[in-house]
Amino acid sequence: MKLAVILALATLALCCSPASAEICLNFLNVIKTLFMGMLSSYEAAIEVFVPDANMKDAMIQLRSLVDTLPPNTTENLLKFMDIVLKSPACA
Amino acid sequence: MKLAVILALATLALCCSPASAEICLNFLNVIKTLFMGMLSSYEAAIEVFVPDANMKDAMIQLRSLVDTLPPNTTENLLKFMDIVLKSPACA
Repeated sequence: MKLAVILALATLALCCSPASAEICLNFLNVIKTLFMGMLSSYEAAIEVFVPDANMKDAMIQLRSLVDTLPPNTTENLLKFMDIVLKSPACA
Repeated sequence: MKLAVILALATLALCCSPASAEICLNFLNVIKTLFMGMLSSYEAAIEVFVPDANMKDAMIQLRSLVDTLPPNTTENLLKFMDIVLKSPACA
């Protein structure tokens, strides 16, 4: 299922015009790593946008909160992300 | 500041190609309403993607968690979103 989400995120990035492809990819990478993978990957995804210390702290707090969710809830959040990215609006 | 975020979200939506404009807008609307505004607006933004009950519950749980963040943290999350959307990659 996680692979499907990654593929769907990649597909959404390709849906965007060349001018916005990079922002889309980096933006989606922040969202993806918020819900799955290592904290270090999430931090790297955030650093792309050169946040100040307060913003970075806030984003880390957000990830800490997300980490408290039961696995079943996280799974359903990823499923929601999957249907968003497979929406006919981006076909 | 919140108006700036809304304008930046609208700008990002316009950065996307026509084929992906709708998904971008709806996707961004979910993210925007996760951090600000009424719960009913967030639920409406989610409903666009016709989630099943489990996915919807998970998304509501996520918003409930975000609502527990101190106002200063939410402000910094919105500031981060703002720099993401103003990133030169989407200029």
